[in-house]
Amino acid sequence: MTNLFFFPKTIAVIGATANPKKFGNAVTINILKNKNLQSELFLISPRNQEIYGLKTHNSVFNVPKDIDLAIILVPAGIVESVVDQCIEKKVKRIIIVSAGFGEIDEKGKKIEAEIAKKCKEAGIRVMGPNCVGIQNIDIGLNASFIKSAPKGNIGMISQSGSFGCACFYEMERHDLGCSKFANIGNNIDVSFGEILEFFKEDENTQIICIYLETITDGKAFYEIIKDIIPLKPIIALKGGRTTSGMKAASSHTGSMATDYKMLKTAIKQAGAVMCENVSDYITAIRTFSFLPLPKGEKIGVLTNSGGSSVLFSDKAEEFGLKLAEFSEELKKKMAPHLISLVKMVNPLDMIGVAEEEQYYNITKAMLEDPGIDIVVTCIVIPPFLEMKSDEHYRGIIRAWNNTGRGKPVIPLIMFSEGFQNLKDLAKKEKTTIYFTPHEAAYACFLLIDRMKILQLIK
Amino acid sequence: MTNLFFFPKTIAVIGATANPKKFGNAVTINILKNKNLQSELFLISPRNQEIYGLKTHNSVFNVPKDIDLAIILVPAGIVESVVDQCIEKKVKRIIIVSAGFGEIDEKGKKIEAEIAKKCKEAGIRVMGPNCVGIQNIDIGLNASFIKSAPKGNIGMISQSGSFGCACFYEMERHDLGCSKFANIGNNIDVSFGEILEFFKEDENTQIICIYLETITDGKAFYEIIKDIIPLKPIIALKGGRTTSGMKAASSHTGSMATDYKMLKTAIKQAGAVMCENVSDYITAIRTFSFLPLPKGEKIGVLTNSGGSSVLFSDKAEEFGLKLAEFSEELKKKMAPHLISLVKMVNPLDMIGVAEEEQYYNITKAMLEDPGIDIVVTCIVIPPFLEMKSDEHYRGIIRAWNNTGRGKPVIPLIMFSEGFQNLKDLAKKEKTTIYFTPHEAAYACFLLIDRMKILQLIK
Repeated sequence: MTNLFFFPKTIAVIGATANPKKFGNAVTINILKNKNLQSELFLISPRNQEIYGLKTHNSVFNVPKDIDLAIILVPAGIVESVVDQCIEKKVKRIIIVSAGFGEIDEKGKKIEAEIAKKCKEAGIRVMGPNCVGIQNIDIGLNASFIKSAPKGNIGMISQSGSFGCACFYEMERHDLGCSKFANIGNNIDVSFGEILEFFKEDENTQIICIYLETITDGKAFYEIIKDIIPLKPIIALKGGRTTSGMKAASSHTGSMATDYKMLKTAIKQAGAVMCENVSDYITAIRTFSFLPLPKGEKIGVLTNSGGSSVLFSDKAEEFGLKLAEFSEELKKKMAPHLISLVKMVNPLDMIGVAEEEQYYNITKAMLEDPGIDIVVTCIVIPPFLEMKSDEHYRGIIRAWNNTGRGKPVIPLIMFSEGFQNLKDLAKKEKTTIYFTPHEAAYACFLLIDRMKILQLIK
Repeated sequence: MTNLFFFPKTIAVIGATANPKKFGNAVTINILKNKNLQSELFLISPRNQEIYGLKTHNSVFNVPKDIDLAIILVPAGIVESVVDQCIEKKVKRIIIVSAGFGEIDEKGKKIEAEIAKKCKEAGIRVMGPNCVGIQNIDIGLNASFIKSAPKGNIGMISQSGSFGCACFYEMERHDLGCSKFANIGNNIDVSFGEILEFFKEDENTQIICIYLETITDGKAFYEIIKDIIPLKPIIALKGGRTTSGMKAASSHTGSMATDYKMLKTAIKQAGAVMCENVSDYITAIRTFSFLPLPKGEKIGVLTNSGGSSVLFSDKAEEFGLKLAEFSEELKKKMAPHLISLVKMVNPLDMIGVAEEEQYYNITKAMLEDPGIDIVVTCIVIPPFLEMKSDEHYRGIIRAWNNTGRGKPVIPLIMFSEGFQNLKDLAKKEKTTIYFTPHEAAYACFLLIDRMKILQLIK
């Protein structure tokens, strides 16, 4: 159903302008930036203008072709009449970017309801109003006024366009990217359900993430999530979890109050991840992007810093994780690589003297051990004994690669955000670094949780 | 009492070595790195060695002067006999860096207790064993084997040396630094209390932070915290909050179980901040380092992104924060700077078109309003309309500077970690950026909490 939004053969930007201080200009530029644009673009402006070599048309009626997708950026007051023209022109899909509707007042709610009704009667699907637009990164189409998402395999639906944009910034830092992006704004017609249906089938979308403020059709939302979960993980974040937040959301997207506890329970029951904050949202995307699922839930922990593993153990217990008991066989395998001060307990504290070789050998031993399903490798970058800042991490990656990456390895490198060489290595090796015990424990939790859900479904 | 640890006139490194793979070498180098070293250094090694131009002595008995501070780095098995020599030499303070005591087994516990007893009888204070040493950054003394902390005004006590070191990495990123650092390890004698007493009086220490795994004398700890709180904020983080964490802590520093809930209640009652995770620990240090306390608890929020202020409002409610009602006067003052779509409610959503001027004028109006005590300025960096990525932040800082920085301004710039220009600006202007709603709301909470505590004490 929503394919024409993401793959339009013809696009009309209504409200296109050469004025760089207007959103109608931003959308036009973003579309034209694509050198291999697969859509034919028509610009509509009441004044005769030439924008980047393209002449504008006075109205949609002057467009010599059928229009798959019309993007409306005119002032709120004339949106309805423009929609009327689109209906007459038999435009197939409409995105209303313009703001000033249900998020403002009752009058706005009435007008947007009227627009929705008219379009429904005409068989036209509408996205928005009060949205930034959509992006199909796979074909380089940025039909929105925000920057293009980095390219990747995440399908993102965001009820806040700017929060989506902020996520792009953070995803870039972690070498993540989107296949498709949609901002549904006040979602008077097209909502989460249709886009999720599309993401379900979309080959380039491997992970789905959703920022939502309100859900209008809870049951359908639940059903589509349940449908997708066996195929792809879904990560959700709700804005307006509290009374204050909901109040703010009502002036943002005209959202109606949704009972968060009920929604959370439902979404979790359907098998999706419900994040409590924006950091967890990104951690979840990173985790499913870079790590395989474990086969069981027994965790082995190694460290060169007692403090790190103590702090990780606390978080592990808070997330209900289970630390493995080392078998006698594993202990025998590890002993030759360790100094005599090391106690053979989990977490295994190899003390500050541990180097690349210890990290390699112990990580490998744990990965090869049938009693361990996930290995958490804690590191504090050692600034002594002539060690290199990335040697421990290199040891871990070597062990992970040499064992075929069959089990998840969670590198917890405490507060290492400032080490560009580590981040470069992570990027090169297509993996990710966890900077705090919370992130690492949450990653373990997420992987185990999804493993269990998939086992239940089987 | 502990001054001689931080200001020793003479230091003996016992176990000094030219071997760069040994901690005895790391400590020696770290001390010698200081070109203006105010302490005379003596290196003790059984083998005749020359280390960086300094000849070693066979034993402390050959040192021609009184020794203020002896740092012991010999193998655990001979530590006790070296301590005996130090007692005979009438050394004034001892740091035992060597590991292999109470954190290993009962035998180790016995030996360290014996050492503590002997030193007490001789009137010598001991730090450690199983620690990395101490640092007095104010005079450039790094008597530890880890890297030097960045210079600043934070007094840090860490029961984990490596976690302390990891904090240095994170502090550097946020332009924070230490006045003094101590890692007390198994704390058989000198513990938190004495160091806190010293930090209380230390002029260069304005903020105190503590990572602890176990507290032996809870009552004294409570009393000294209560004593300091009127003068300086104290931020604490506990490793071993859970059963798993405590088990890990017992092999780390030989820690005994401490009831976390009781400890937390006591520490909070004494007026200190008890953080639940390492990220909050850093956020708390940043907040007290860069922001003034408010006079009340009413918060004004402005934003160019509805999603950001919705997410902030959720966190604000979770932290029990109070959003101000805008007075008619304030609304009148703000209106001329805003487009008509903007609703005059708190959070004030100025929509994506808001530029430097709007941020400047609205932040200033809120800062000048008697009904607002804290201003939270949400930004999603706008990638459109030819805006500069730092213009909003510049507007905020201009407003803050022009109003004399009398009230705290909390800049929540969602997911902006990747923008070096913003971080450079924060550094230049001696302030800090909050990257997530949680961080920003936590900062508000901390400032209000301390304001209330100080009001109660008055």
